[in-house]
Amino acid sequence: MQKGIIKLHDPPSIHSWACVGGEKEWEGPLGKYFDHIDLSGRFSMDTWEQAENEAQRLSFNFALKKGDLSPDDIDALYAGDLINQCTGSAYGLLSFDIPFFGIYGACSTSAEALTLGAIGIDSGHFKKCGAVCSSHFCSAERQFRYPLEYGNQRSPTSQWTVTAAASFILSKDGEGPYITHVLPGIVRDGGINDANNMGAAMAPAAVETLSRYFASSGKKPSFFDGIFTGDLGYEGHSIVIDLMHRSGYTLFDNYYDCGMLIYDRKRQDMHAGGSGCGCSASVLCTHILPKLKSGQWKNVLYIATGAMMSPASVQQGLSIPGIAHAIHISSRKDNK
Amino acid sequence: MQKGIIKLHDPPSIHSWACVGGEKEWEGPLGKYFDHIDLSGRFSMDTWEQAENEAQRLSFNFALKKGDLSPDDIDALYAGDLINQCTGSAYGLLSFDIPFFGIYGACSTSAEALTLGAIGIDSGHFKKCGAVCSSHFCSAERQFRYPLEYGNQRSPTSQWTVTAAASFILSKDGEGPYITHVLPGIVRDGGINDANNMGAAMAPAAVETLSRYFASSGKKPSFFDGIFTGDLGYEGHSIVIDLMHRSGYTLFDNYYDCGMLIYDRKRQDMHAGGSGCGCSASVLCTHILPKLKSGQWKNVLYIATGAMMSPASVQQGLSIPGIAHAIHISSRKDNK
Repeated sequence: MQKGIIKLHDPPSIHSWACVGGEKEWEGPLGKYFDHIDLSGRFSMDTWEQAENEAQRLSFNFALKKGDLSPDDIDALYAGDLINQCTGSAYGLLSFDIPFFGIYGACSTSAEALTLGAIGIDSGHFKKCGAVCSSHFCSAERQFRYPLEYGNQRSPTSQWTVTAAASFILSKDGEGPYITHVLPGIVRDGGINDANNMGAAMAPAAVETLSRYFASSGKKPSFFDGIFTGDLGYEGHSIVIDLMHRSGYTLFDNYYDCGMLIYDRKRQDMHAGGSGCGCSASVLCTHILPKLKSGQWKNVLYIATGAMMSPASVQQGLSIPGIAHAIHISSRKDNK
Repeated sequence: MQKGIIKLHDPPSIHSWACVGGEKEWEGPLGKYFDHIDLSGRFSMDTWEQAENEAQRLSFNFALKKGDLSPDDIDALYAGDLINQCTGSAYGLLSFDIPFFGIYGACSTSAEALTLGAIGIDSGHFKKCGAVCSSHFCSAERQFRYPLEYGNQRSPTSQWTVTAAASFILSKDGEGPYITHVLPGIVRDGGINDANNMGAAMAPAAVETLSRYFASSGKKPSFFDGIFTGDLGYEGHSIVIDLMHRSGYTLFDNYYDCGMLIYDRKRQDMHAGGSGCGCSASVLCTHILPKLKSGQWKNVLYIATGAMMSPASVQQGLSIPGIAHAIHISSRKDNK
């Protein structure tokens, strides 16, 4: 079906995965499941941008090690981040001698990379691919908002950029979890132009993808052990529930947003939740994939969302378009 | 062969293509072959960034029209540009209701998009894909170098960012030209940290890809009617000839660089040549593909090169990594 679900001929396995994070992520409910934490957020580097590069390198190294693989085993990398010209990926993965596809999907990067990697493997041309992404609170703040030293006040709907890098290794062969279906997102502009309310800006794209997913698959939300958007935060999560209800789909207790899971709202005041490429990607690593691997969960719908604006486009008065890519991850190739 | 050439199972056809440009491009030797020229470079918009968005939209519309297609016929878009957060593509293609993959490959974007699109079609999941990219002199200057009003002096090795957007539509079925092989690039850092000498920064990546191409294909440079790198300019072109010679490959008169073809060096003083995503992409549209379509040429090796730095990475003293993706385009599926 055109523009409907893509059912992979031979679902690739998510062979191994790893993520690294900073202090705030360590203090969150998933902190102990990270593969590595640098409390300073500096990852031994001189600048925040280089810290983000190093976090990508570390996460990919951990994913290789956990998968008992060497860089020679990986046929292609799909990688992106939020930094201007995506330098987090180009520099971060420079030391690996692997064909490289740079991508940009804002906070949807993890799902875009996994989608492209899954299609690459399904084409028969690659046996193993890496999907890598990152975000860093300090590099993102000074690029998108204000230098940290300015100490600006944050609005109630603003989200906290997660300091984390995550890597996933997809494999033609493997024991799962498997990516059985993907549904690439369509850019949607709901007319929001408040750069401190990303949840509202991205919600229409998430709703479009979710509706298209359920319509073209014939599945109901209750089929899944968990439906995870990321990273709409508290604001966007409630908007999605409202808009989906109006579209005829009722999302129940199995609908979560990664931006609400990464931090503890009571102990850590992050306002509307977490965001950044590293947010949904690290929740996938630390919370979702382990439960699929262990068999506790059977089917998960993962929808990473991105806000496709730049500081310049916002300053020029344009509204903020969003995108959402959906991936059906299952403990079995046949979804049963 | 791992990390060697990817031979497409069923080579996709480049069904249609189109490009739009500005005044300098019109004045160049290929100007009359552009589908649309806006002498003001403004494309009826208020800002240079929005002009670039509009150029992408126009180029894709022209490619659809020339291919007798509607947006509904296109299963996926692979698009990128040089602007921070790749807004040229996200905003430029927003009006089309098509699944969207944002990519970042600097000036290698055209070849990255064509590679990913070709693999997408070869996977069997897409019938038709769009590959779109753009660059704009005015938006690039103020983002990467200085505001235009400053009137800075340019160094002899600097290149002129081409104002152009180009779109290609790949199709499972069609009459060619065909993408028969692709070779994704590996990020390479040759230690150059002069942001006004992109040709030197990208040359090592081009040499790595070219050498890997010839080694894994067994072909010789003389097999091709033309080998086109883009956009190394005069500086990078001569470096590539030197380095390839040392690697045991002699590039003859059939080796060109798109940055040297887009402008007329005698009449238009662009220093070391053209650059930007729109440079090699518009040379592909106006010069290379028509000759393959007409049968005048049979086989072309197209290698788009990108410099993966950002203004911040250069200011922080990092050297400039490059990447080069190669595509073998042929008038026949069997390369004969």
